[in-house]
Amino acid sequence: MDQKQEQQEEEQVQNKVQQKQQQQQPKQQPKEKQLAVKNPKGTRDFLPQQMVIRRQAFKIITDVFEQHGAVEIDTPVFELKETLIGKYGEEGGKLIYDLQDQGGEILSLRYDLTVPFARYLATHGYKKLKRYHIGKVYRRDNPSIQQGRFREFFQCDFDIAGENDPMVADAELIKIIDQIFTKLDLGPFQIKISNRKLLDAMIQIAGIPKTQFKTVCSSIDKLDKQPWKEIRQELIEKKGVTEEQTEILSKMVQLRGEPFQLIQQLKEQKIFEQQGKEALDEMELLFTLLKYMNGLKNVIFDLSLARGLDYYTGLIQETVLLGGQLGSISGGGRYDDLVGMFSKNSIPCVGASIGIERIFAILEEKYKKSGIVLRENQSDIIVATIPSKNIDMIAEKFKIYDLLWSNGIKADVCYKLNWNLGKQLTYANDQQIPYAIVIGEDEVKQEIVKFKDLIEKKEETINLKDLVQIIKQKLGK
Amino acid sequence: MDQKQEQQEEEQVQNKVQQKQQQQQPKQQPKEKQLAVKNPKGTRDFLPQQMVIRRQAFKIITDVFEQHGAVEIDTPVFELKETLIGKYGEEGGKLIYDLQDQGGEILSLRYDLTVPFARYLATHGYKKLKRYHIGKVYRRDNPSIQQGRFREFFQCDFDIAGENDPMVADAELIKIIDQIFTKLDLGPFQIKISNRKLLDAMIQIAGIPKTQFKTVCSSIDKLDKQPWKEIRQELIEKKGVTEEQTEILSKMVQLRGEPFQLIQQLKEQKIFEQQGKEALDEMELLFTLLKYMNGLKNVIFDLSLARGLDYYTGLIQETVLLGGQLGSISGGGRYDDLVGMFSKNSIPCVGASIGIERIFAILEEKYKKSGIVLRENQSDIIVATIPSKNIDMIAEKFKIYDLLWSNGIKADVCYKLNWNLGKQLTYANDQQIPYAIVIGEDEVKQEIVKFKDLIEKKEETINLKDLVQIIKQKLGK
Repeated sequence: MDQKQEQQEEEQVQNKVQQKQQQQQPKQQPKEKQLAVKNPKGTRDFLPQQMVIRRQAFKIITDVFEQHGAVEIDTPVFELKETLIGKYGEEGGKLIYDLQDQGGEILSLRYDLTVPFARYLATHGYKKLKRYHIGKVYRRDNPSIQQGRFREFFQCDFDIAGENDPMVADAELIKIIDQIFTKLDLGPFQIKISNRKLLDAMIQIAGIPKTQFKTVCSSIDKLDKQPWKEIRQELIEKKGVTEEQTEILSKMVQLRGEPFQLIQQLKEQKIFEQQGKEALDEMELLFTLLKYMNGLKNVIFDLSLARGLDYYTGLIQETVLLGGQLGSISGGGRYDDLVGMFSKNSIPCVGASIGIERIFAILEEKYKKSGIVLRENQSDIIVATIPSKNIDMIAEKFKIYDLLWSNGIKADVCYKLNWNLGKQLTYANDQQIPYAIVIGEDEVKQEIVKFKDLIEKKEETINLKDLVQIIKQKLGK
Repeated sequence: MDQKQEQQEEEQVQNKVQQKQQQQQPKQQPKEKQLAVKNPKGTRDFLPQQMVIRRQAFKIITDVFEQHGAVEIDTPVFELKETLIGKYGEEGGKLIYDLQDQGGEILSLRYDLTVPFARYLATHGYKKLKRYHIGKVYRRDNPSIQQGRFREFFQCDFDIAGENDPMVADAELIKIIDQIFTKLDLGPFQIKISNRKLLDAMIQIAGIPKTQFKTVCSSIDKLDKQPWKEIRQELIEKKGVTEEQTEILSKMVQLRGEPFQLIQQLKEQKIFEQQGKEALDEMELLFTLLKYMNGLKNVIFDLSLARGLDYYTGLIQETVLLGGQLGSISGGGRYDDLVGMFSKNSIPCVGASIGIERIFAILEEKYKKSGIVLRENQSDIIVATIPSKNIDMIAEKFKIYDLLWSNGIKADVCYKLNWNLGKQLTYANDQQIPYAIVIGEDEVKQEIVKFKDLIEKKEETINLKDLVQIIKQKLGK
């Protein structure tokens, strides 16, 4: 896919996101009213329906994280600027939001959750930690170039820090990613895996000097979006790589396949006999552990994988949806030296970040297609009244509300006290509230209520003293 | 309480918070290592134990919000600067964090969740909405003056927007606050209630010109922290109020008491006969509705209540813990004109904000005193192995993990594959994991496992094929 095509597809995604946001807007919006005040460019408000979907997605993800014994932490939205600089490559660094210098510390909004995690480990002197963290991160991306990407977006990070036996944590990490995307049920996906040390070895084998490693890496990183022909041209014309070196690289970086098959092939071709041998052994161990865990079915070993960030030192991984054009839905790897930048004690770490924004978009689309409108208002019942001249029905209404609330029953209130019964029940229907209690003069005198099932359209009479128990039964509590 | 005393007490709170953070730090921290890199001043990291408490508190609060039919929304952490300016009074405005102008929009971090809510209503064209929102807000407070207050802290907001019958939403709001603080069980509390229109009436009755209303209000606002004598002096010496005017004010602003008693007294003394009559009637209706809802027991009618923010137009409220010196734990009121600043259609709103940071501090203290260490690691089981020469125990171990995980059982992994059984079980104990599966050569051959209850210190032998079912029974699933 070339740059232009990619941009077009990203624009389509952005349009879809905007359409969806507009569709989700409440119907009451009068036409003559323009958006008076906007949210900032590249950010989004979450409407109630979107919040329900967001909570569902977060629940699936955190349940898997907790299943593996991870604890949750949180860090501030901004960090000292010095904590962030020099961690995200040349391109990433330009995208950091700085706070204005209003006196005091120089601060920046966090760019990801990985560097704050490394800082957190150093600050609190951990030696090991298995944690997850869900939070918003900030990138001052130019929306006119890279549409479909938000400037404020969520990341769900899971990382394992500590001196552990080789590849055990790495394998569990891949298994977790596999579990999460299986449970999210977004469609078929592929977990691409490689090793930063294999990339280094390939560049070394091609005879490219060490000083050019980073810039050559960043060209190879584009292989999922551009054909090798273009990468080759860039390497020769812009990066000063010789045709011969490019030829050698070419044979290696385009290799990908079923993990054990590719390892077999690499061994037969003796590609990583000297440089990269250790990394290849690591990969074989990783795949073996994953096989034991039944975590290999969506894994592909892909030597073109590079990952743009500076801090990776071993395993690298990226998850993509097959048939989709949404880009990666998770990424990560091993970063053994990052904590050492903040502390005398280096702590090896491996982790992954799940790009939840794209997942939200897919889930919203799914619900839209299915026609299911998720319940936003969680309450189960309203208390409706028939006005009376002899009895203060407002007092009677709120006495019943108190009874319901004090027993933990979810009961919404209609703020129009003079509405007739029909309007009150219409309100309940609009809010998808399944039950209504109706009281009038007679009911109050006889200490009973009419209990309406608004979905089944049934009505029964209940003694007030049995009300709470019967509602709890109906709600299955 | 004078300013100095207040400052001292706030310093004590800050010290306690810091002590607690330090106590929560893991024990592995080597002494020679200093905090290498810090989180920014006035912010905090949440450690796993603190996250468990935070989640408990949020659950209690959101359960009550949802019980009343509120939906959840979210807005970006930053807003256009123009959205925020002119909403927080002279003092508040100085505390807004601005983002650096890096080209494009001029942005600021949100100062509260109320103004973004008003902007949200205007942006999406709502006419009514009952919503809650939990999010971090930012105030560039000077920690050397106002210690114990964070620069980044959570607010839990609940607001009811829309044209409703008088005082119904206001009464439900107070009932919600009462329910939340009852359930949080922090100790006895008081919900102070007044009305901005009564304050205006009092200043008018005293004969103070309209132009001085705001500045006089801000003096009265300090009555909970300073004695009347000092306020009086400030009014006369700095605000140009005459001694006679101060005398008239004095008799009114110090009135407080049980709601219906105070209303009776005000009626007898004919204080709000002309100015403020409507507001007093509103208050009587509010207290009556609250009485029906059984929501009056912690309410006090307090004419000294002023609330610093510009946007309040009716009901104002503040909640304090009795006997504590932590300041208010919730605040809010009615703001009928704020949405109109963003939109042609004004929408009356009433809401409250819960200051969760102080609640966290109290809950942490409570758990500390009780000696209860909350479980951070949620997993229920580990798989421990006895090494064997004949069987690949690593393969067997991870096959059982796959079985557990695929059945939704929470199972943590030990990353040291060569640890002996004792070390593996010690790991489980350290993590408060209640069960362990133990397998060795014999177990694998016979397709059984040893199942250890680490709390009851019991062991039984289970057939592998029955394992999942038995564990689910034990976990009560």
